[in-house]
Amino acid sequence: MSGKLRLGIPKGSLQDATIALFGRAGWNIYANGRSYFPSIDDDDIECMLIRAQEMARYVEHGVLDAGLTGIDWVVESGLDVVSATSLTYAKQSNRKVRWVLAVPEDSTYQRAEDLDGLTIATELVEVTKRYFASKNVSVKVEFSWGATEVKPPTLADAIVEVTETGSSLKANRLRIIDTVMESETHLIANKAAYQDQWKREKVDSLALMLNAAIAAQGHVGLMLNVQQANLAAVISVLPALNSPTISTLSNADWVAVNTILQEDVVRVVIPKLKAAGATGIVEYPLNKVVL
Amino acid sequence: MSGKLRLGIPKGSLQDATIALFGRAGWNIYANGRSYFPSIDDDDIECMLIRAQEMARYVEHGVLDAGLTGIDWVVESGLDVVSATSLTYAKQSNRKVRWVLAVPEDSTYQRAEDLDGLTIATELVEVTKRYFASKNVSVKVEFSWGATEVKPPTLADAIVEVTETGSSLKANRLRIIDTVMESETHLIANKAAYQDQWKREKVDSLALMLNAAIAAQGHVGLMLNVQQANLAAVISVLPALNSPTISTLSNADWVAVNTILQEDVVRVVIPKLKAAGATGIVEYPLNKVVL
Amino acid sequence: MSGKLRLGIPKGSLQDATIALFGRAGWNIYANGRSYFPSIDDDDIECMLIRAQEMARYVEHGVLDAGLTGIDWVVESGLDVVSATSLTYAKQSNRKVRWVLAVPEDSTYQRAEDLDGLTIATELVEVTKRYFASKNVSVKVEFSWGATEVKPPTLADAIVEVTETGSSLKANRLRIIDTVMESETHLIANKAAYQDQWKREKVDSLALMLNAAIAAQGHVGLMLNVQQANLAAVISVLPALNSPTISTLSNADWVAVNTILQEDVVRVVIPKLKAAGATGIVEYPLNKVVL
Amino acid sequence: MSGKLRLGIPKGSLQDATIALFGRAGWNIYANGRSYFPSIDDDDIECMLIRAQEMARYVEHGVLDAGLTGIDWVVESGLDVVSATSLTYAKQSNRKVRWVLAVPEDSTYQRAEDLDGLTIATELVEVTKRYFASKNVSVKVEFSWGATEVKPPTLADAIVEVTETGSSLKANRLRIIDTVMESETHLIANKAAYQDQWKREKVDSLALMLNAAIAAQGHVGLMLNVQQANLAAVISVLPALNSPTISTLSNADWVAVNTILQEDVVRVVIPKLKAAGATGIVEYPLNKVVL
Amino acid sequence: MSGKLRLGIPKGSLQDATIALFGRAGWNIYANGRSYFPSIDDDDIECMLIRAQEMARYVEHGVLDAGLTGIDWVVESGLDVVSATSLTYAKQSNRKVRWVLAVPEDSTYQRAEDLDGLTIATELVEVTKRYFASKNVSVKVEFSWGATEVKPPTLADAIVEVTETGSSLKANRLRIIDTVMESETHLIANKAAYQDQWKREKVDSLALMLNAAIAAQGHVGLMLNVQQANLAAVISVLPALNSPTISTLSNADWVAVNTILQEDVVRVVIPKLKAAGATGIVEYPLNKVVL
Amino acid sequence: MSGKLRLGIPKGSLQDATIALFGRAGWNIYANGRSYFPSIDDDDIECMLIRAQEMARYVEHGVLDAGLTGIDWVVESGLDVVSATSLTYAKQSNRKVRWVLAVPEDSTYQRAEDLDGLTIATELVEVTKRYFASKNVSVKVEFSWGATEVKPPTLADAIVEVTETGSSLKANRLRIIDTVMESETHLIANKAAYQDQWKREKVDSLALMLNAAIAAQGHVGLMLNVQQANLAAVISVLPALNSPTISTLSNADWVAVNTILQEDVVRVVIPKLKAAGATGIVEYPLNKVVL
Repeated sequence: MSGKLRLGIPKGSLQDATIALFGRAGWNIYANGRSYFPSIDDDDIECMLIRAQEMARYVEHGVLDAGLTGIDWVVESGLDVVSATSLTYAKQSNRKVRWVLAVPEDSTYQRAEDLDGLTIATELVEVTKRYFASKNVSVKVEFSWGATEVKPPTLADAIVEVTETGSSLKANRLRIIDTVMESETHLIANKAAYQDQWKREKVDSLALMLNAAIAAQGHVGLMLNVQQANLAAVISVLPALNSPTISTLSNADWVAVNTILQEDVVRVVIPKLKAAGATGIVEYPLNKVVL
Repeated sequence: MSGKLRLGIPKGSLQDATIALFGRAGWNIYANGRSYFPSIDDDDIECMLIRAQEMARYVEHGVLDAGLTGIDWVVESGLDVVSATSLTYAKQSNRKVRWVLAVPEDSTYQRAEDLDGLTIATELVEVTKRYFASKNVSVKVEFSWGATEVKPPTLADAIVEVTETGSSLKANRLRIIDTVMESETHLIANKAAYQDQWKREKVDSLALMLNAAIAAQGHVGLMLNVQQANLAAVISVLPALNSPTISTLSNADWVAVNTILQEDVVRVVIPKLKAAGATGIVEYPLNKVVL
Repeated sequence: MSGKLRLGIPKGSLQDATIALFGRAGWNIYANGRSYFPSIDDDDIECMLIRAQEMARYVEHGVLDAGLTGIDWVVESGLDVVSATSLTYAKQSNRKVRWVLAVPEDSTYQRAEDLDGLTIATELVEVTKRYFASKNVSVKVEFSWGATEVKPPTLADAIVEVTETGSSLKANRLRIIDTVMESETHLIANKAAYQDQWKREKVDSLALMLNAAIAAQGHVGLMLNVQQANLAAVISVLPALNSPTISTLSNADWVAVNTILQEDVVRVVIPKLKAAGATGIVEYPLNKVVL
Repeated sequence: MSGKLRLGIPKGSLQDATIALFGRAGWNIYANGRSYFPSIDDDDIECMLIRAQEMARYVEHGVLDAGLTGIDWVVESGLDVVSATSLTYAKQSNRKVRWVLAVPEDSTYQRAEDLDGLTIATELVEVTKRYFASKNVSVKVEFSWGATEVKPPTLADAIVEVTETGSSLKANRLRIIDTVMESETHLIANKAAYQDQWKREKVDSLALMLNAAIAAQGHVGLMLNVQQANLAAVISVLPALNSPTISTLSNADWVAVNTILQEDVVRVVIPKLKAAGATGIVEYPLNKVVL
Repeated sequence: MSGKLRLGIPKGSLQDATIALFGRAGWNIYANGRSYFPSIDDDDIECMLIRAQEMARYVEHGVLDAGLTGIDWVVESGLDVVSATSLTYAKQSNRKVRWVLAVPEDSTYQRAEDLDGLTIATELVEVTKRYFASKNVSVKVEFSWGATEVKPPTLADAIVEVTETGSSLKANRLRIIDTVMESETHLIANKAAYQDQWKREKVDSLALMLNAAIAAQGHVGLMLNVQQANLAAVISVLPALNSPTISTLSNADWVAVNTILQEDVVRVVIPKLKAAGATGIVEYPLNKVVL
Repeated sequence: MSGKLRLGIPKGSLQDATIALFGRAGWNIYANGRSYFPSIDDDDIECMLIRAQEMARYVEHGVLDAGLTGIDWVVESGLDVVSATSLTYAKQSNRKVRWVLAVPEDSTYQRAEDLDGLTIATELVEVTKRYFASKNVSVKVEFSWGATEVKPPTLADAIVEVTETGSSLKANRLRIIDTVMESETHLIANKAAYQDQWKREKVDSLALMLNAAIAAQGHVGLMLNVQQANLAAVISVLPALNSPTISTLSNADWVAVNTILQEDVVRVVIPKLKAAGATGIVEYPLNKVVL
């Protein structure tokens, strides 16, 4: 082993969620007030708070070995880094964000092609330029310092803006006419650092444990007892996520079933399990899941 | 299946606890600011926030298929609805509330009969009138807009007021002389809607899962290992809530015991289990329990 | 059994943590505003809030049967009480506190002996006097009402102050030159009361359950499935804290392994378990642990 | 003088504003937690917190000598009390509230007459009934426990609801079609008590000082110096609220002008004063104003 | 001038009020987080936060030139310092505090003499000892680390405790049987430092301005116009605090009256002024008053 | 008059202070949640929240008639707008901000010239480029998305960053080696709009009143009485900010003096006034000052 893994933590809106995720994955990060060098309870790692927009720049330069940031800002930067894993926080509810092309609700624009010659405000300037170039549409792309949604129609003709549910766009009376790109958080690494065996193992451990913690948020454990006679009926009710663990009991007529379920199907599954003859049904919380 | 289940959520003091309970039961309700139509992550359900006092009215009229409210307000309304289940939040600590008849601490009143000709302030006017009528006592029942406890002796001679522990009445120097009615939350349904098979199954699933979440609040899981020789002693210590699951282990001299306990007996049971020879005793939290 | 166990809860900085710990151990303490007699859901116990500094005094006098306080204040008092157990809140992260002798960073003092004739400010006057007496160093020990760290060099030449990480001392430009005593919280009891069988069992039950709750904070449960062929490899990866429970399954080729791990080794162990062939690895939280 | 003035303070949404107003008028009221008998620093007065809806009832019965409440609830009660003064909090911005008849935005109802046979939800049942009776329109008026705005069209056909700006009605997609009554806070008194000279003077002093404090919120003091030659021009710019005080100065060529202005005209007046030759223009805040 | 004035600011319960008072007096003190050396916008002063109990010690030693603390702790210390001024924060409401001797409400103790041979708990040990010695009563005085009020009758027989209104003692069912000493905040100075002319002037300026700011809290300005004919009647209504300023106006029939009033008499005076013929009555707030 | 004045309010860190300043100047702006079009109580004005960095762009384009922003961002934009006034919030304490060139504390860089060939991180890219170009120093200027201060030496060699007191730079161990530009807030206007008489008068009124409110923050009123004999001594103590108003009194031996003082000299002036014979000295607060 040589040295430490220099790891970039995204400063700003993702910061608290990221630190909480690391906590669930097994690493405690202590952000001490105004310092940009939070401490971490792992002597192998040095953390630095970096804006998501700049993460790829400093990972590519090699100042950082790895970092977490949105794939949107990686693509925007045009730089060459490795993605060790995507981190779809809470996969089952699909929290991917989208950068969308939006126009005033009551405008006549229906497609990107209708915006020829007009002004587009966005924080994602390069991706937006490439998008319109690929369609051979000539527009003026203006960098927006924020509050992009409020700009049409006075300050811009259309915008390219990030959205999760579209509700904020709707509240500003905007209409989505296309998706420019989808994005989610990735754990990225410097190419050279990722060739170093020790650093690669460290990055991969992080990827494994972060995903284990993410999976635990959307899954629960389920235990129940069932008579041998009803076992097949009970098993047939369980989703085929992974095969349940079936334990033998002292009383040989009965078995215990222990399994992992997606949290959002439990409310449908439990009534069926009960109807199929299961007893002593218990749902319990999980900290980490590696299926 | 046809349509949706229109479900009333009690607005006001019960609102946050109800939304939290649904969350633990498997349904996420999103109360978005000032809207009275919270969204829910179940396409089969439409929610509406309704005051507990008015819930029975709108369920009876059929504007809602079902709703949660105190049985006190159902009785007060005098309307005809079905109760799918009571929901004794945290059964073991007995959180039923009581509507009591209370008089000034230092008054001479001892029974309802002593109040003939006097003024009673209450929010529960109809139930109170029926209570006194059943005793052939003639009183003047005045609707109270709140702060009922502070009214005797200046603004009323006695009150009928809801209480959980009686401490607020005591703080206002009032003395309870009778219980007018007991109440707890119920999941009520419109009679016609409850005849519809799809709606009934939906309501019953809600009832099952809400009760499973309530039970989990007052129970915990307990695992331990014990040698075959000590098994009987260990079992004898466990309350007879349900029979424990006894698993066979690789080491045939030992078995593993897994059981559900009421949370409030654990502090008594664990020392006894240890004395009886149990090892590796572990208590773990539960999300849902269906015994 | 006759009477109640009179139990002192430390008022002040430890109060909230202590009440939370009792809650996890199975006793709910309700601190009602400004009262010093919090209620508790155990009819056998009467609680009283007492400053940690005075706990030993009142336990020794017999006004209290037992109480929680730092061993530092017990020693300071010079009184004779029994320690039923130490309570090293979160053992694995070593939260023992130390009373240290600290001097200005840029002073020339290196040892206690260099302070002869000088002024020492501290809240722990008696222990400090004994410390210097044992070294035959003559100093003036002044009682400090607080803000001790800011006193050198203006208001005192050196201090004896409590510290967990030393960071506050460092921030005040002080340098530690010796440890005067280590301390942690103890459950202490009156000597006579601890001879009474009923009281002793009650105190010992408290000690057992409080330690079970403390242990649970630093441990987690881990379940996994593994083929018989890989069992030895999987077992070899597990720390030897206690022997894992290995259950037989319906599918005789496989076994289920259930064990307790220190929370801070999980991030290292899980990647190794996966590499050794474990599947369905699940970490779950614990409420209490009695190994 | 005989006894004390028993004064009702409105509990609920007006409570804090009322206590603040009394503070500015010269009486400090201390609402101590959950007590309904706040103390006041005037030995001649006893306060009681009473819901605005019940104030007229208890003032009319003589339990209270006087009280503050909205004139809407006085009219609703149908009881006979004296109004000592209206208290138009912040007169210049017209904070009178209105009870309006509102219907769904996209309904076809234009006048009260269009609602014949329909259901009206409101908290102001009696006033609403009289309103429709006076128009010979037959409707069903249902008491609403709150959240009235959300009821049309599902739970009611129209509502009578209080509003200041109409924005909440608009947010619920309702359209106002008539004003049922206007309301503002009044200081009301019991008829007999108001015949008692001492009580009447006390009530009138309260009225004077409360209005003085209200006026001060909307007014400011303005001082300036001006040469005799420019005095007429300066005076002509000042609104004719009351005549300004013109003081002679040591330097006989100049005078000082001191006057009271409505706060909302200052931004228009000061530029004109400067243009007219005023110097040393200073605006200062006021605590009380009796013109 | 030589050097700086080293000034102690009381840390703890008085800290915020003291810093606010200095702000109103014209000195801005910036307490930056955990530092005990707050900055101040006066190059002639260096501040230090010191516990009130220790202030006299360090002023007497000469480490500080001056400081603010309660005269109770000065007397307790037995040390020799100068009092530059008392600072009766808000004189008119008499906020002097009292150290009182209090016994259990239902005990038979009526006088200090009844406590012979008993235990007294207090934070003010020396003053208490002198008090009992002066009465030739022999008691055991125990230092109390806090929560003194809760100690009788279990932990002490009586207490000497500080109180402003007595309400906390009453809430703990204690009865006051004597006043041991009265106290208020003083600005104290080191004897030698107060002989130095520059330091004395600095301390006296502080005393003057702090008192000016305190006086402003309890006073207001009042302006009015009155005809010469009514002037005597108006003047007779004004309290004789200081003589009012009577200005001549352009209109020689009228005069303007400007005066300072205690805030708590305004509600009585204004109605009388109006009755006496005053017009344009205006109350305005004050920042500082030096009569 | 035609139309409205479209006014940009800076969104972000200056927003609350700006809205508060407008409130003191006489215009109430209501920022309603997430809307970017706050309402204002002046029918002649339409507000829009715009980032300070973009204000000049939209004022220059004519989308806005006027706006408040830092002169730094105006210069950075390189666009041509009119400055109606600077708004040195709280003049006396000099709150101008500076953009400074800062390097690591322990680096050897002393002048801009020492940075040839290195990387400079800043939010003010264009101004920084011009600064280095004017010195013929060739550097790489990188746009920084924030947290600029933490970048040297790892992520950049030096930075150009805004600072008020320099304390944040110091905390990050940076050393200032030059000032690149000073900045303060300006009220800027579109060139064409400022030629329109109605708009110009509106903008100038805003400038007058905003400055009047700013001046009031740093000034207070002072009134006192003095005998003719002592008048000259009293006048000589007053700073020559503007000449005091000296009023004749009924008692011809005395005069009243009324004047405006800078707040930070009051603590020095009042002791001198008292020594010179002034009595009834009163300091009162001001809302607006136009000298």
